[in-house]
Amino acid sequence: MNENAILHRPESEYCFAVGKNTVRLRLRIAKTDRPDKVRVVYGGKYSYAHDRKTAEMQRTVEDRLFAYYTVTLELSDPRFVYIFEIVGDGKTEYYSEDGLTESYDYELSYYNCFQYAYINECDIMKPVEWMNTATFYQIFVDRFNIGDASKDKSYINLKWGDIPDPKSFAGGDIKGITRKLGYLRDLGINALYLTPVFKSVSNHKYDISDYFDVDGHFGSKADLKELIDKAHAMGMRVVLDAVFNHCSENLREFRDVVERGKDSPYYDWFAIKNDRPLEYETFGDCAYMPKFDTSNARVRDYLTKIATYWIRECDIDGWRLDVSDEVSHEFWRHLRHAVKAVKPDCVLIGENWHDANIYLRGDQFDCVMNYAFTKACLDFYAFDRYDAQMLADKLSELLMRNTDTVNEMMLNLLDTHDTHRFLTRVDGDKNKLMSALALTYFFTGAPCIFYGTENAMIGGYDPDCRRTFDWSMENEQTQVKSLIKTLAALKHDTAFADAGIAIGARNGLLFIDRGEYRLTINESGGDRKLAVRSAIASNKYKDGVLSSGGFAVEKA
Amino acid sequence: MNENAILHRPESEYCFAVGKNTVRLRLRIAKTDRPDKVRVVYGGKYSYAHDRKTAEMQRTVEDRLFAYYTVTLELSDPRFVYIFEIVGDGKTEYYSEDGLTESYDYELSYYNCFQYAYINECDIMKPVEWMNTATFYQIFVDRFNIGDASKDKSYINLKWGDIPDPKSFAGGDIKGITRKLGYLRDLGINALYLTPVFKSVSNHKYDISDYFDVDGHFGSKADLKELIDKAHAMGMRVVLDAVFNHCSENLREFRDVVERGKDSPYYDWFAIKNDRPLEYETFGDCAYMPKFDTSNARVRDYLTKIATYWIRECDIDGWRLDVSDEVSHEFWRHLRHAVKAVKPDCVLIGENWHDANIYLRGDQFDCVMNYAFTKACLDFYAFDRYDAQMLADKLSELLMRNTDTVNEMMLNLLDTHDTHRFLTRVDGDKNKLMSALALTYFFTGAPCIFYGTENAMIGGYDPDCRRTFDWSMENEQTQVKSLIKTLAALKHDTAFADAGIAIGARNGLLFIDRGEYRLTINESGGDRKLAVRSAIASNKYKDGVLSSGGFAVEKA
Repeated sequence: MNENAILHRPESEYCFAVGKNTVRLRLRIAKTDRPDKVRVVYGGKYSYAHDRKTAEMQRTVEDRLFAYYTVTLELSDPRFVYIFEIVGDGKTEYYSEDGLTESYDYELSYYNCFQYAYINECDIMKPVEWMNTATFYQIFVDRFNIGDASKDKSYINLKWGDIPDPKSFAGGDIKGITRKLGYLRDLGINALYLTPVFKSVSNHKYDISDYFDVDGHFGSKADLKELIDKAHAMGMRVVLDAVFNHCSENLREFRDVVERGKDSPYYDWFAIKNDRPLEYETFGDCAYMPKFDTSNARVRDYLTKIATYWIRECDIDGWRLDVSDEVSHEFWRHLRHAVKAVKPDCVLIGENWHDANIYLRGDQFDCVMNYAFTKACLDFYAFDRYDAQMLADKLSELLMRNTDTVNEMMLNLLDTHDTHRFLTRVDGDKNKLMSALALTYFFTGAPCIFYGTENAMIGGYDPDCRRTFDWSMENEQTQVKSLIKTLAALKHDTAFADAGIAIGARNGLLFIDRGEYRLTINESGGDRKLAVRSAIASNKYKDGVLSSGGFAVEKA
Repeated sequence: MNENAILHRPESEYCFAVGKNTVRLRLRIAKTDRPDKVRVVYGGKYSYAHDRKTAEMQRTVEDRLFAYYTVTLELSDPRFVYIFEIVGDGKTEYYSEDGLTESYDYELSYYNCFQYAYINECDIMKPVEWMNTATFYQIFVDRFNIGDASKDKSYINLKWGDIPDPKSFAGGDIKGITRKLGYLRDLGINALYLTPVFKSVSNHKYDISDYFDVDGHFGSKADLKELIDKAHAMGMRVVLDAVFNHCSENLREFRDVVERGKDSPYYDWFAIKNDRPLEYETFGDCAYMPKFDTSNARVRDYLTKIATYWIRECDIDGWRLDVSDEVSHEFWRHLRHAVKAVKPDCVLIGENWHDANIYLRGDQFDCVMNYAFTKACLDFYAFDRYDAQMLADKLSELLMRNTDTVNEMMLNLLDTHDTHRFLTRVDGDKNKLMSALALTYFFTGAPCIFYGTENAMIGGYDPDCRRTFDWSMENEQTQVKSLIKTLAALKHDTAFADAGIAIGARNGLLFIDRGEYRLTINESGGDRKLAVRSAIASNKYKDGVLSSGGFAVEKA
């Protein structure tokens, strides 16, 4: 056994409760090690010396360097202790907190066994159940659709269809979204994630000057309420964007600091570096976006009130948390408590581009925007850094970063308002886009489609990725649109949605098995045609669509 | 480079803030790898693509399998991102969230660099400063000293000096401790940790029936207040034992459940399995100790009120948290908030026998009782499982389990009321005890001496480890007593107390360097004599004391 590789850590992604008496374990070893058996020897904390059970673990996941053995245990005593037995080469080794040893003394196990000493109900991370069948659609509100024909349009400075610049206002609004709920439902969408809708002078509205009011360009609180009510009536969820790292320089409390400096009661709400002349920390280098000090208890209460206000007022279904990695953990814990108390299945989605494990232990977010997944897709489809095997390895590695509970809520995306559009990254190759979309739907978690993807919208980095939606294509049945609909239908097949996935690669092909379905992806994109052996779901697929796309979905 | 071995994880023991703009990093690699240089390449999150700094890391720690490179960085931008460069074999490799790679594209670093995206003040774990020079003395109250001559002694059923059984009452009390503060100060003790003192029918009082009252056998609230006031006046701290996992079956609220079952308003305070006949979860298998349900908000508030009450009433300096590993994380977070709000330097010490990393991130405990250190000492001194090199490796490994901040507060102990006495484990070999005591004082953290150790008290597992203190030895200057005094003096030498430690082994000797001091420990116990080349501190040492002990302390 390669001792450098072996790893287990209790109360982590390697050992987590999925119920009051149910615990899931992972043990990592080197991929090159192939023991005959891997077992967990477990029991109650106070009876382990003389009363133990053994369960075999299965080698279920492999990534580039490691293999992972997993097992789910039902416990009769929630005071759970355990070690691992690894059998191979004619001997048994024991893995405990003392590492790998040739023998193990159960009489002294209270010093060095692993343990999850008691599964307390409130520490178990509860899944937001609806995330399991959710297909998200991200809308940059100013660019999606103008719904309010009667509004004052004098602020609009971009002709619909023209290329935006950073200061463009195209006129999209909330009514515009409400009017297109039928279109979205038809596309298979059942969850919306809107960029910010609160009062702000910018087109993106990430600089908010009044968190308790909907921006006039986008409509009114009543419009927002109508959108959410209608969405709910159609079985759709709505997630809003919470900008809690920073605000607008026009926020009343910040204006007060500008005017009164240290005399302002809001002085310590912000990360002030100097009073006169006023210097303060910001988001990025944007002076118009002063940073909140979320270590401050009053700021914490203020922002938490906003989070619960919109749940109470409009019954929103979740918050996407902007720049969540720069906000304090303590604040997020406080926010989670407050939000879940009002609406337990309100999802909290962090904007963390990096390994967010520390935010995903059950006390802060439910999940994050899975930009690590995005990067893996880019490395395979766009940057030619990965072949099929490397992509399979990377996807497996990502699943081992967090618990299954978190993975099943992860927001998997190919692009957002903060990246190039995926289709532009792959030089307009629609086959690659479609293949990547299929992968996004098959991967564990909730897929999130950036508005216009179904129309094969292109665009470089901000502001180019934020072009206006082309409604002339509304009734056109494009290949991409057809694919998205079919994939969405899969998410509603419990044989698919509730199933775990197995990832592998062979001969230049990536495989993902999920329930009765298999996705096959050709690493050379559209070059190598794959026959579709059976149509899925409602037979919406035509053979040609798939065979030209370099991927196939089959049903067993 | 051995890719299976390399490890770094942001916002963990591998990357932690020690100040608003100061961050400490560790990178783990295989011990057998010896790169020419290891560097961190770091910068601000929003400027990293074009503006980076480089700092060399030092190979400061080695354990059995791994080597650790460390560095402390002062940041100009708290939005900290980084990767590692490893130079060797004529090439440079890069280590990021994408693992070890031959090249690294800084333009895409926002996808895969490491980051500690913003150091928020409230997330920085604040050290309890006094722990750095603390030497603890653990007192099992019933067995230390009878101070109240006038009290009703009818409950006493053990003659002082006789061997206790589980039901023995010897008569020790709080006044008894107060009277011996001078003795303890003379011994170099400056912190007391008392087993529970609240109302309870048992001798150990881990089954509490009134958390707001001092047990009559031990004295009164006034007695406790007097003890703490006098201790404070002498520069000593007092830590009490918080039993929050369970209570006594005599607790009023539990009695109500016994009487009224489901009709009791306290029914959900406990982990009830069945109403009639009443079945409930307990501590261990002790029916007289019903388990609280710390997932319950009312229980949380009740127990938190107790924790702050005794700080407010008696100005206690800390809580040792009994069976802390079976209590919910959410409860501990709540408790920490409340306790630190009342008294920021009130220390919270968990009773976690195992890896407690998840409790030691700054949101729950400050430290734990370091039973992993105990086990390492037993493996070396008592069980013959470790030679000097293995002990050095294990001690280093333990330091790498947690952040430096936590390590510096760790409660390092050889024995407690829950174990055999160390001297009994080493078959009465005082040289081994003294060597182990020296190690305990040199190791990072606060040493904790179990009452009577200075008299070379022996005893097996509970109740034998809880014998009565032999006051006939009060004025006897034993070797062990003399050693403890000298070691305690070291803790007050800032050149010792503030220094980091370096651990190594060579030719059967273990070395720990701390500031200007070196501790040398002979793995064959007392067999091989070591000369003491220079006396330490106040020259209290006689050569003979050390040379017969199989260890030496030298000053540079």
